[in-house]
Amino acid sequence: MAAKGTSREIRLAARPVGFPKGSDFELAETPIPSPGDGEVLVRNVYMSVDPYMRSRMAERKSYAPSFKVGDPMTGGAVGQVVESRSDALAVGDWVNSMNGWREYYVADGGSLMKIDPALAPVSKALGVLGLTGFTAYVGLLDLGQPKEGETVFVSAAAGAVGSVVGQLAKLRGCRVVGSAGSPEKVAHLREIGYDEGFDYKRESPADALDRLCPDGIDVYFENVGGDHLEAALPRMRTFGRIVVCGLIAQYNDTELQPGPSLVPLLTSRVTIRGFIVSDHFDRLADFLRDMSGWYREGKVTDEETVVDGIENAPAAFMGLLRGENRGKMLVKVGPDEPVAA
Amino acid sequence: MAAKGTSREIRLAARPVGFPKGSDFELAETPIPSPGDGEVLVRNVYMSVDPYMRSRMAERKSYAPSFKVGDPMTGGAVGQVVESRSDALAVGDWVNSMNGWREYYVADGGSLMKIDPALAPVSKALGVLGLTGFTAYVGLLDLGQPKEGETVFVSAAAGAVGSVVGQLAKLRGCRVVGSAGSPEKVAHLREIGYDEGFDYKRESPADALDRLCPDGIDVYFENVGGDHLEAALPRMRTFGRIVVCGLIAQYNDTELQPGPSLVPLLTSRVTIRGFIVSDHFDRLADFLRDMSGWYREGKVTDEETVVDGIENAPAAFMGLLRGENRGKMLVKVGPDEPVAA
Repeated sequence: MAAKGTSREIRLAARPVGFPKGSDFELAETPIPSPGDGEVLVRNVYMSVDPYMRSRMAERKSYAPSFKVGDPMTGGAVGQVVESRSDALAVGDWVNSMNGWREYYVADGGSLMKIDPALAPVSKALGVLGLTGFTAYVGLLDLGQPKEGETVFVSAAAGAVGSVVGQLAKLRGCRVVGSAGSPEKVAHLREIGYDEGFDYKRESPADALDRLCPDGIDVYFENVGGDHLEAALPRMRTFGRIVVCGLIAQYNDTELQPGPSLVPLLTSRVTIRGFIVSDHFDRLADFLRDMSGWYREGKVTDEETVVDGIENAPAAFMGLLRGENRGKMLVKVGPDEPVAA
Repeated sequence: MAAKGTSREIRLAARPVGFPKGSDFELAETPIPSPGDGEVLVRNVYMSVDPYMRSRMAERKSYAPSFKVGDPMTGGAVGQVVESRSDALAVGDWVNSMNGWREYYVADGGSLMKIDPALAPVSKALGVLGLTGFTAYVGLLDLGQPKEGETVFVSAAAGAVGSVVGQLAKLRGCRVVGSAGSPEKVAHLREIGYDEGFDYKRESPADALDRLCPDGIDVYFENVGGDHLEAALPRMRTFGRIVVCGLIAQYNDTELQPGPSLVPLLTSRVTIRGFIVSDHFDRLADFLRDMSGWYREGKVTDEETVVDGIENAPAAFMGLLRGENRGKMLVKVGPDEPVAA
């Protein structure tokens, strides 16, 4: 079939080094494609830009495959069917797809998610009623598990996800504090229900959290990383939860920051959990039953390094800190046989 | 009652600065106390030295209260009742307590845990059958949730907890790799069932993990921190779990290391979890029901920053990365009204 006009699209021209620049993108024109049997032609009306796209512009390992240089980029888009050869969709139907960054596309009619324009403005399917809102919903409610009366801190709180997270936390009866990058955004946080907000360009997250969360943080919804994470970590309350949704401060790094990078938490969906055994005494009876069985059967052995004499206990302890033990380090402070006191 | 002799004890003489030294401890003598009604006099035979005690020597916030300067230190100890004025315990009974670092103590007879010396040598109540083994059991099995065929990495693997963790991971059918601080300890790891071990004083954890865990790590049982954690994080497999039991590399730090410190994970039992929304599509129907309801009722509002024209999409994206948006950032790539293609 002959082309019926041109469709503009944005291609990845080069992998950005550090912060992306205009020349990393290329605006190109292609003929408008024609739908085959079962397919539809869609004209996009809205497309989403999201921080995760920065990761996909790079070649590094991430949860989503990298964009290819020379290819159009992809992302969430809402458009309208303008030609249909599919029974699933009619001309005029609104659909949601991952075929953003272009004006027109052809797709299998059954592969597109139809949007009901009576429910809300169609653009909401890219925001509060789309992946953005879903990210806030799953991240805060399922993973953060906020409880009534708890303190929730949200970084990049005026952003797409953050602004929904704060409102959901209020629905759950929490106190909600957010960071944002301008006085106007901080004012906006209060309008949408945040109890407190601060401008991280004017006050360090550490100082702001001391001021606004003097009793600590129960749930930290992390969109930023960097100094936000460094400030939040030591201010977490006992059994606190940090949900890492994004680390936008680190996406444009060209050099590794000092210290452990938490980016793999996100890309590999890793959980890190600190624990103290005394919180788990409900498992003590199970432990004694299982472990004494394994010990008797020789399935678990146990080596001891024994230092003699209480006067040598400090040296034993210092040796332990230097790794001079093998297995359990003990100090024998008296003979095995009972003596009269 | 008159004293019947002297009991030696180790007191905290000074809070250590950096690595503890001998003069931070003081060996002192006190009269052997006499038990009152319901009490017993216990002579300690074994006492445990454990890395967590380093934290308790400092004044900083931790999960356990700090030791007081001038007071005897405390910790796990196994001893024998030498005098009893309690119905709960008889002379000769073996008991487990937290009254270590001293030769004799008096305690309420009902407050002590009796040990059965027929089950295992009594010192095991401080090791594999005590808090050490319990820590390995809860940390690996309950929190790490290792599955058959998974790869488990254990730091300080020849230590008291680590040597039990490795054996439990083998019982669960995992491949187990451990780090230790000498060739002798590495050889010992293989004796107790570890599949592989490396000497972190001769090979960096990063190089060793590339060599020994080329397909990544499913469960990391963390006793060390520092370069071990930095090496493990980017090598975690999807949905990997890091259980932080100890961070011994950091206990003696006098200065903050660069980057976020994960010590609060331990002291406050914090969970950090990275997530990707596409792993949670089973919740999509719940989300659409809840969020469209909240949206209609005005409980969740949603702001958009809309940039016009696909040619401006790169600028919109870069603006997003600079935080120039409020709420959801969208690009309008065409008119709202359908046109013929």
